[in-house]
Amino acid sequence: MPVSTFVLPASLALQLVSGAAPAAKPASSPASVKPAATAKATPVYSQAVAEKLIGPALTEGHAYARLAELTDGIGPRLSGSEGAAAAVQWAMRGFKADGVKAWTEPVKVPRWVRGEERGEVLATERTRAHPLSLIALGGSAPTAPEGLTAEVVEVTSLEQLAALGDSVKGKIVFFNHTMSVPADYGRFAGLRGRGPAAAVKAGAAGVLVRSLATASLRTPHTGSTRFEPNGPKLPAAAVATEDAELLHRLLANGPVRVKMVLGCSELPEVESHNVIAEVKGREKPQEIVLISAHLDSWDVGTGAHDDGAGVAMVMEAARLIAKLPQAPRRTVRVVLFMNEEHGLHGARAYAEAHAAELPRHVAAMEMDAGGFKPVAVSLRAGAGGQDLVRPWLPPLVALGAANFSAREAGGADLSPMAPARVPFFGVEVDSSRYFDYHHTMADTLDKVDPQDLARSTAAVAWMTYAMAEMPTTLARPEAPATPPGAPAPAATQPKATGH
Amino acid sequence: MPVSTFVLPASLALQLVSGAAPAAKPASSPASVKPAATAKATPVYSQAVAEKLIGPALTEGHAYARLAELTDGIGPRLSGSEGAAAAVQWAMRGFKADGVKAWTEPVKVPRWVRGEERGEVLATERTRAHPLSLIALGGSAPTAPEGLTAEVVEVTSLEQLAALGDSVKGKIVFFNHTMSVPADYGRFAGLRGRGPAAAVKAGAAGVLVRSLATASLRTPHTGSTRFEPNGPKLPAAAVATEDAELLHRLLANGPVRVKMVLGCSELPEVESHNVIAEVKGREKPQEIVLISAHLDSWDVGTGAHDDGAGVAMVMEAARLIAKLPQAPRRTVRVVLFMNEEHGLHGARAYAEAHAAELPRHVAAMEMDAGGFKPVAVSLRAGAGGQDLVRPWLPPLVALGAANFSAREAGGADLSPMAPARVPFFGVEVDSSRYFDYHHTMADTLDKVDPQDLARSTAAVAWMTYAMAEMPTTLARPEAPATPPGAPAPAATQPKATGH
Ligand SMILES: [Zn+2]
Ligand SMILES: [Zn+2]
Repeated sequence: MPVSTFVLPASLALQLVSGAAPAAKPASSPASVKPAATAKATPVYSQAVAEKLIGPALTEGHAYARLAELTDGIGPRLSGSEGAAAAVQWAMRGFKADGVKAWTEPVKVPRWVRGEERGEVLATERTRAHPLSLIALGGSAPTAPEGLTAEVVEVTSLEQLAALGDSVKGKIVFFNHTMSVPADYGRFAGLRGRGPAAAVKAGAAGVLVRSLATASLRTPHTGSTRFEPNGPKLPAAAVATEDAELLHRLLANGPVRVKMVLGCSELPEVESHNVIAEVKGREKPQEIVLISAHLDSWDVGTGAHDDGAGVAMVMEAARLIAKLPQAPRRTVRVVLFMNEEHGLHGARAYAEAHAAELPRHVAAMEMDAGGFKPVAVSLRAGAGGQDLVRPWLPPLVALGAANFSAREAGGADLSPMAPARVPFFGVEVDSSRYFDYHHTMADTLDKVDPQDLARSTAAVAWMTYAMAEMPTTLARPEAPATPPGAPAPAATQPKATGH
Repeated sequence: MPVSTFVLPASLALQLVSGAAPAAKPASSPASVKPAATAKATPVYSQAVAEKLIGPALTEGHAYARLAELTDGIGPRLSGSEGAAAAVQWAMRGFKADGVKAWTEPVKVPRWVRGEERGEVLATERTRAHPLSLIALGGSAPTAPEGLTAEVVEVTSLEQLAALGDSVKGKIVFFNHTMSVPADYGRFAGLRGRGPAAAVKAGAAGVLVRSLATASLRTPHTGSTRFEPNGPKLPAAAVATEDAELLHRLLANGPVRVKMVLGCSELPEVESHNVIAEVKGREKPQEIVLISAHLDSWDVGTGAHDDGAGVAMVMEAARLIAKLPQAPRRTVRVVLFMNEEHGLHGARAYAEAHAAELPRHVAAMEMDAGGFKPVAVSLRAGAGGQDLVRPWLPPLVALGAANFSAREAGGADLSPMAPARVPFFGVEVDSSRYFDYHHTMADTLDKVDPQDLARSTAAVAWMTYAMAEMPTTLARPEAPATPPGAPAPAATQPKATGH
């Protein structure tokens, strides 16, 4: 979950209130495809293949079973952890069982480890003490063992923090905001990603950030925060929205002091791996259709929606395509990226190691918006993309996804491929409940509806096949205006943001 | 939150699926009251009084402000705790500020204190370890400091546990169930209340109970459990529904071992207090209309819905009635009971201390189903009650509560008055979301809608006035068939249960 300038996944971007939407490329208007009026119309694709991909995806429950293996069997898999290493082995075994050739490629990843964490609002003359429901942000510094006790200063933007100048010295900066719908994530994620770095520069002693959440039962949401390399760090945690509301109410009546104890630590980098698998194309094996998800998760919850569901979808798509009587025209390559959540190291390693091949990447997708039902197909390509893809959409009608999103396809792990002008495609899912669970201990298997997952898996399998089989390929898009890694704009500016 | 045979609050009872509903007294069918067709119809009551009660309740926000004081200022208030003692003082100050005469009456209460609590599912050859999201039940024994590690045995009823006989010796009994709607609470609360006592008799070493929840973000729900006085106890905790699902899935594949650490302790009993306040009747001061709520809460969350909202409603009703130009015919007595949640001690102390007065208690209500919007009026009285009350309902039309519930009025703290045949009345609220928060750290102020609370407060103020002013009183009901405190039936039998 980096929080900079990566392309907003279409599934989330769709929900941005139009007034707050990032400036987008001129988007084609959504256009639904209807099934052919008679059964005699000849499609551009093989009906038999559509049945062989969509039928099993909808009936066998294989993707859900695999997701259960990953979440129940492996569990959390933060980059650098034993869980992450176990997930790599699990994925290799899975591809082998599926008859899909797979290999690993090395990725150096950070190893940040959560420790004890607790906090409380200290009692005043007016109010008794309150425990805080908090969770350290990935990358946070620890507090001293006895904790950090300081006065709280509330701000709602990085600009407001900057305006306070020296007055936050030695204090705990509390970043509050008004997230209420998924589209708000992009507006406020910068408070978590860049707020702590800004606060440490201003001399603050610690940071509390309101969780980026669309529902809460006192549920804090973690996520990555970034400090200057080798620069100073501070203890930074997210508080549940309830606790943010409490702090806000108490601050309205006078000074508030908080004690927080964070026992997290940054260990030496670890060698980890991307997992890559391929079904070779029958005619143009040198042309690559890349489908991806990220194998790592946060260390709380079991990463069922983020991004176990994506992993299950793309592995199942490859399994079903590998079982077809004949392979599609082009090569289908699955990449399970390591460490999307805490620095995009796997994505960068892939783009570097495969730089020479990127011009032959004719389409790339990342599924990373949860295991929800499919709602649309998205593209980020040069002119004519929709016309090329539209004839392939009828098999998605009954899945509810046979239309184009008004927003562009993308994915955090795809962003390092953008400068090479790799066309992106995607299957959008209904992410309206994604930020109820995102980066929390509640991101567990029970939150994934087997029917929704099966439908999205079917749509992914079909769209992957379509990209690999269609006679011509998508035109390559323009290179992005902002290269990945460039400084992101102010957090409260609406801006496309990866997740 | 006792779990025995107390009368089901009408607000919850209404939602019982009819097939699973407890055998009820023949209930009148719900009947809506419409506003008078012309403004000239002469009501049996004073319109001016209706305006003086409902107007301020809906416009001044006094009940919500008081709830904020109680939840933010005092916070959790488990019986025997400093918070509970502070709440008693807070209530006394509140009544004084309102010009309502108040006093305290002593109640001995248990003092159970939560300690460290954590658990994990141990790794097997097939699965890595998983942390458990758990919370000790009130009354639980602690584990040894190093924790309890044992194999888990899943059952779904006390009968199933009994059938297992000696085979649960030394094991952790896991009570699973299928609660999905509020009406299920009565069906399954016995697993929490009496399951641990049954398990300790069977030789089990510990108990895990699936939380009694209608929503979860890995949110465990506590509540009271009861062992034989001076009998053996064991460590007993509730797990979040997600963790119950995980245990169930893992058990389907083989043995599961859990380690749990509970550091709770039972301290000596403490003297605490009921808070009682009165507005003397102008004509028949010896006749008492009792309105009540419970001042204690669980030790997690701030008891906003359970039962801060009820406290705010009945205090505000008394304040508004005390400000009327003339007092109603009968005495309005407010009782804020201490320790509803962990043994009903306040309710029993009140019924004992006021035994001689109970024949002069002409009506009693307890608001304890959350600070939600009002939906109906309920009664538990002898024949003719609805006919007596109906002419007083028109002021509730715009509040959405001018109709009778098909279910009887009640309340856990009222149950010790039932043998004295005190008539009960109530304002039902829409409790459909109550068990999302009930007995969790998420029962906080933000969950209470100020508008809903104002509307219920208005309805409570008006119905209280109506009971105190109407020319005659409700006929007294039959005595209950099962005296309070008698053994409750099997947990999986549908049965009315207090909360
Ligand atoms: Zn993700
Ligand atoms: Zn209660």
